[in-house]
Amino acid sequence: MVVVGAGLIGLVTAWRAARAGLGVTVVAEQLHGSASVVAAGMLTPATEASFGEEALMRFGILSRDRYPGFVAELEEDSGASAGYRAQGTLQVAFDTDDLTRLGHLGDLRARLGLSTERLTGRECRRLEPMLAPSVRGGYFAAEDHSVDPRSLLWALRAAAERRGAVGVRDRVRRVVVDDDGRARGIELDSGGGITAGQVVLAAGVGTPALEGLPDGVVPPLRPVKGQLLRLRMPPGEGPIVTRTVRGLVKGSPVYLVPRDSGEIVLGATQEEQGFDTRLTAGGLWEVLRDAHELVPGVSELEIAETCVGLRPGSPDNEPLLGPTAVPGLQLAAGHFRHGVLFTPATGDAMAEALTTGALPDYARRFAATRITGGTPAGADGGPSEGGDQHQWT
Amino acid sequence: MVVVGAGLIGLVTAWRAARAGLGVTVVAEQLHGSASVVAAGMLTPATEASFGEEALMRFGILSRDRYPGFVAELEEDSGASAGYRAQGTLQVAFDTDDLTRLGHLGDLRARLGLSTERLTGRECRRLEPMLAPSVRGGYFAAEDHSVDPRSLLWALRAAAERRGAVGVRDRVRRVVVDDDGRARGIELDSGGGITAGQVVLAAGVGTPALEGLPDGVVPPLRPVKGQLLRLRMPPGEGPIVTRTVRGLVKGSPVYLVPRDSGEIVLGATQEEQGFDTRLTAGGLWEVLRDAHELVPGVSELEIAETCVGLRPGSPDNEPLLGPTAVPGLQLAAGHFRHGVLFTPATGDAMAEALTTGALPDYARRFAATRITGGTPAGADGGPSEGGDQHQWT
Repeated sequence: MVVVGAGLIGLVTAWRAARAGLGVTVVAEQLHGSASVVAAGMLTPATEASFGEEALMRFGILSRDRYPGFVAELEEDSGASAGYRAQGTLQVAFDTDDLTRLGHLGDLRARLGLSTERLTGRECRRLEPMLAPSVRGGYFAAEDHSVDPRSLLWALRAAAERRGAVGVRDRVRRVVVDDDGRARGIELDSGGGITAGQVVLAAGVGTPALEGLPDGVVPPLRPVKGQLLRLRMPPGEGPIVTRTVRGLVKGSPVYLVPRDSGEIVLGATQEEQGFDTRLTAGGLWEVLRDAHELVPGVSELEIAETCVGLRPGSPDNEPLLGPTAVPGLQLAAGHFRHGVLFTPATGDAMAEALTTGALPDYARRFAATRITGGTPAGADGGPSEGGDQHQWT
Repeated sequence: MVVVGAGLIGLVTAWRAARAGLGVTVVAEQLHGSASVVAAGMLTPATEASFGEEALMRFGILSRDRYPGFVAELEEDSGASAGYRAQGTLQVAFDTDDLTRLGHLGDLRARLGLSTERLTGRECRRLEPMLAPSVRGGYFAAEDHSVDPRSLLWALRAAAERRGAVGVRDRVRRVVVDDDGRARGIELDSGGGITAGQVVLAAGVGTPALEGLPDGVVPPLRPVKGQLLRLRMPPGEGPIVTRTVRGLVKGSPVYLVPRDSGEIVLGATQEEQGFDTRLTAGGLWEVLRDAHELVPGVSELEIAETCVGLRPGSPDNEPLLGPTAVPGLQLAAGHFRHGVLFTPATGDAMAEALTTGALPDYARRFAATRITGGTPAGADGGPSEGGDQHQWT
């Protein structure tokens, strides 16, 4: 099989499929998908639960709860740290209106059976002393953790390779679909090609634009721009926050995610304006303003990096997983704001779909065919694997 | 003679001295001084006039009024554009308190004989339609213009070279002062040296730290940090402001300086905290916040660059020019926030001091010896010129 895309979703699919015994080639122009490299890495389905997104929340909880075992396996297979931090998440409200809004979400979580602990402003500041005095109160989600997506990418790549997956650094010129309507592999920009029994498209927001796809097989994905900053603590100083802090500031969401390295990720805008990856004055200003309101001390910190990513949003904001109507062609795309959180569950679901031809029950709702219609084509042997390729290592 | 430092002040001294017939070598580790590369390039002595700084303002007016002729000569000598824009400057107030403060400055200008035109908020928006509706009023300074310091640096370097100056890219290991107390040249890090009858120190905030200087000859300079952003207009769109707009936003000063290229410089913080060149969350936030209040449309613009510079502030915030108490050693340093504006006047004053041994009347207040005491040592022939050097071109 061949996987197109080397972001978290492409690499986890490759690794889990290779562990399941499949021969895997991963093809990508860049080794790292752009959304994955930019992502903050919050694993926070509880504090993200919102009205009308219960299905995403349930998949998120399932995936979150797989993280400890997933990380243990990954670190064993890769020999590298995945940058997982099990410190919980503090969600805070800047003013009383924000606290009212958080209260509605707290009630929703209680109805959905998710335990989070309601805290006063004083209790919030006891957990995170650098919070602004104005913070009104919040919730502590003891099970909502974080991971460093860049460490995770590196570990997934190493683990996939150790399990026999082969990486090819090239642009995909087109997906090859035979006259009989079956996917046969891909052609590369460099001129070679890879024949494969199964082709998995995991190229994020670029997936629908791949050449060679029959009409109506891959739903459109819209880019949802996020602008973030990475701040650096001065050497020798303790962290300004010790766990993920997310907050509402006059209705505007913001978060601070600390890393073991002392870096702190601030994010993020959500902008729907097409394939625009410009870093803008307004984007940075919005993130800095809200982070400054919650934790004034961020102002003293050095800006180590600014970055922009495009989240891949499907028509219903839910992932597109598993077989399409084209035999031999599967999708692992459209993870929108949840790609890091969903990485373990998507990896497992894709490995099952690739070995058995069908998604597991917990992922069936996200079947790639739900939007386009058509019957998912089951897996079968397809043509024998082979190709003419350049490895990326 | 040898000039240490290739920022605007070092290069203008080199060029004007070369035009006056002196043999000139310029030595610098980097070709461009860091403060010069970061500067916004406002030539705005009228809108900068403030209480207690009348002498600086007068020198600024003199230098500003030399700019058109200076640019004409420079562009002729260099064959390059200096990036001069004669569009005037609009100074605006965000709220009524800001307008009161601008009113006091307007009265000061009137007393000093500087004409600026008082405008209503509506008149301000007629000049610059993208100004926020909340802008209360302001002043138009028809003679306060701008220049692109990077273009100016490039033109000065080319002009100095065409007039025979030689550039050497190396670090100065030490200034050589003989046992008889006379400056004889410099030693270079690469091992060579340059013997010169006159040594001019123009290394910005790094000047006092040069090795080999007798105690008490160069006053201390303190670094005053400035953080700025450069924004880029989308291709094909008209500029968001057509002239320099500077404003007070709840007491906090901010400016927007447009370039012919479509770039807009936003600045700037003023922070006194030593040799700290970290780009900080708070610094960017402050500039973005105030610029956004004055011209909300900046939010849509791409951030092309962020930069940090250290302005060289002397003990009394005024420049240090001309002969020191050490024969053969002159200073051209300490230009603080005014280096770009003072470039023509400082260049002329230094050329006169280097050829006659004394500063012209209009610059005598800024004599380098005013702080350290001692008698300015006049120019004389000194040892013959020569050295062992690598050219920078």
